[in-house]
Amino acid sequence: MADATVAAAEAPAAAAARRPRAGILVTGSELLLGQTQDRNSGWLAGRLDEHGVRLERVLTVDDDGAGIEEGLRELLDRGVDLILTSGGLGPTHDDRTVAAVAAVVGRRLVVDEPTLHRIDEITAAFAAGRGLDPAAWSHGNRKQASVPEGAAVLPPVGTAPGVVVSVGEQRVVVLPGPPSELQTMWATLPAHPDLAHLLGGPAGPRRTLRLYGTPESQVADVFAALGGDGHGTETTICASRSEISVVIRDAGGGEGAVGHLADGLEARLGAAVYATDPRPLEKLLVDRLRSARLTLATAESCTAGLVASRLGAVAGVSDVLLGGVVSYADAVKADLLDVPTALLERHGAVSAAVAAAMAEGARRTVGADLAVSVTGIAGPGGATPGKPVGLVFLHAAGPDGGRALERRFRGDRQTVREWSATAALHLVRALVEDGPDRT
Amino acid sequence: MADATVAAAEAPAAAAARRPRAGILVTGSELLLGQTQDRNSGWLAGRLDEHGVRLERVLTVDDDGAGIEEGLRELLDRGVDLILTSGGLGPTHDDRTVAAVAAVVGRRLVVDEPTLHRIDEITAAFAAGRGLDPAAWSHGNRKQASVPEGAAVLPPVGTAPGVVVSVGEQRVVVLPGPPSELQTMWATLPAHPDLAHLLGGPAGPRRTLRLYGTPESQVADVFAALGGDGHGTETTICASRSEISVVIRDAGGGEGAVGHLADGLEARLGAAVYATDPRPLEKLLVDRLRSARLTLATAESCTAGLVASRLGAVAGVSDVLLGGVVSYADAVKADLLDVPTALLERHGAVSAAVAAAMAEGARRTVGADLAVSVTGIAGPGGATPGKPVGLVFLHAAGPDGGRALERRFRGDRQTVREWSATAALHLVRALVEDGPDRT
Repeated sequence: MADATVAAAEAPAAAAARRPRAGILVTGSELLLGQTQDRNSGWLAGRLDEHGVRLERVLTVDDDGAGIEEGLRELLDRGVDLILTSGGLGPTHDDRTVAAVAAVVGRRLVVDEPTLHRIDEITAAFAAGRGLDPAAWSHGNRKQASVPEGAAVLPPVGTAPGVVVSVGEQRVVVLPGPPSELQTMWATLPAHPDLAHLLGGPAGPRRTLRLYGTPESQVADVFAALGGDGHGTETTICASRSEISVVIRDAGGGEGAVGHLADGLEARLGAAVYATDPRPLEKLLVDRLRSARLTLATAESCTAGLVASRLGAVAGVSDVLLGGVVSYADAVKADLLDVPTALLERHGAVSAAVAAAMAEGARRTVGADLAVSVTGIAGPGGATPGKPVGLVFLHAAGPDGGRALERRFRGDRQTVREWSATAALHLVRALVEDGPDRT
Repeated sequence: MADATVAAAEAPAAAAARRPRAGILVTGSELLLGQTQDRNSGWLAGRLDEHGVRLERVLTVDDDGAGIEEGLRELLDRGVDLILTSGGLGPTHDDRTVAAVAAVVGRRLVVDEPTLHRIDEITAAFAAGRGLDPAAWSHGNRKQASVPEGAAVLPPVGTAPGVVVSVGEQRVVVLPGPPSELQTMWATLPAHPDLAHLLGGPAGPRRTLRLYGTPESQVADVFAALGGDGHGTETTICASRSEISVVIRDAGGGEGAVGHLADGLEARLGAAVYATDPRPLEKLLVDRLRSARLTLATAESCTAGLVASRLGAVAGVSDVLLGGVVSYADAVKADLLDVPTALLERHGAVSAAVAAAMAEGARRTVGADLAVSVTGIAGPGGATPGKPVGLVFLHAAGPDGGRALERRFRGDRQTVREWSATAALHLVRALVEDGPDRT
């Protein structure tokens, strides 16, 4: 079985070779020191995949100039068609990406005057708004407007322009570090004259299956029983935050092989498959509620707003999510969610009865069609006899009844909270799709 | 100025060379396809730094065996003392890290019987709890219990054991991908007999300054005016989510040089320095409130629970954060936060007056000493004439008055929400530390 998989992965190399190849170079000592997290390479990876570009590796290096130059040379030497860099475009001494790119490609740095003018305008407006002296920015602005001679300049979103440098047939695209700047600038790349031949292509046949409530081992067994990738597919099975994502891509077998495998998995694992598109769970749920003309409220104890906040990331969610209550204190459960004090005393705040009362209370006080509640012990403290860390009760309430769920999550505080929030979103989905529990 | 900085960075190479050097190899096609984000390398980077280990680079590769082997060889060839790998220990066909490590170091894979027994117990309990057949796990368990001959086994936290492989003086530590498993397993490493010589050392002199409310350019200018790293320090200046973190490390100048630079920065930027330790802002605020014996409530519109949820990540926060309200709908602002309808009609929900009323209302209805509110336009929709996307009003209310804040954030929906939440936490801090606005 394992051998068959390996053989299959090697056979379609010719098909894969036609796709553009890319590498990402992430710069920043703050990343190597753990001061901040890289949020760009994963996002860029998804965009490259959408454009049918094969990302071979991501390399994160120190932002001293030598490290960036070394990393850049390595990626160029691999022969990839496209290198994206992220970060190191700021005004401070440790922002050295543009200078390093210029050194590697053997060009001198020149100030791009239109860009300098644009950055000066932006920082002057910022300074004026705060009563600061715009001269404080002049040195940094000049640095940020310096680009390798002959490079194409991508207009700044914040104060840093991007650059596209051509090295023979290879392209190096230098992008800013702040995720929102990088993402906005990315939108201009597929149509850029120097990049359209790399980013203009279709992604090729693929199918996505997203599963909840089944172990990864079982997905792996079903996949193996169906012959794995033996018919010219390339499949990734990825478990994250209690959900499993399966993406099946063409690797020589064409659309037929992709569809055959996807259909086989769906037939055997159907009950656990909740989506076949890449929309985030939050977006999927908001769309589902909107099309059913249902409004939602939240009542959160151990997740403390995480369910509402995840939904809040979806643009336009305020049509659907009317509001919610974060209720750590029992008095808040009683006062804002009408949970009877007697119920809290009898069952304790972490109980199925209180979860149900919280959800019913949130429906009434917020005035929503549906409400979902979470109460549990996120840890590390708070466990009592019979109520261990990780024990969580959830309830989704609707006009015709509710769905209850008791889970025992393993892991640290953040894991328990995240898995609980995911479970809450799926519980609402189940209530809408499958109706209330039969009692 | 720039030249002096470069020269200084080169001079202390001898001092830096005494520190152990490390590389991280992250495996997972799902990362290169953008299906999931790497949350491990940044966390490991912080831990390595705490132990005085210099992380040189992070390499993320495809999880086909050849890619992992190639990446591992590259890191070994760099001569680093320690290589940490993350991911690829699962039961599925695309989990190939252990086999790749064995191939690179020239050892065969053997089943570690005690580990297999342990994993069988874990999966049998899981299967029993859900009425599933434990045999579904047997193939995967045997795979997960296979380790390179002669390797030290790190007991599984989930179902995957870690391994420590010695290659001459170099050490390869294979860790699982799920962040909570990796973090729990990490705790056993500093005392591990094969690793204590690398992870047992102190981190060396360092000072941290964390700033809020000052532009990165100004921090850079003050840093430069103080001579930069010219006296044997190594400084990183990192802006993230509207906060700036400055870490000054020893690079030959010793504790005196570190302290001199840190004191200089603090003297000139003091008003913006809010912390000198690495505690997360949320933890810092919860500790501050607890020591002042103050309780807190939240009232969130555009952040929709993000403020409460970020505080909820702090263990023991329920002593301090009693609860809160998420109020997208005006009816929720009126019903649960007692915001007068007339005020909503006159000023609109996104206004200083409504922000103040939300905070005052949350104090009363939740029964907390302090409350903080956020109302704004996160975008992309929702802008009205005079109220653009990114406009946010915040208010922190206390028994003796409040602090009001109006901000206009640039960026996408998630940026506006995150920056707003950070501003809300700082506003509470300012209320506690500096008292209410004078009116």
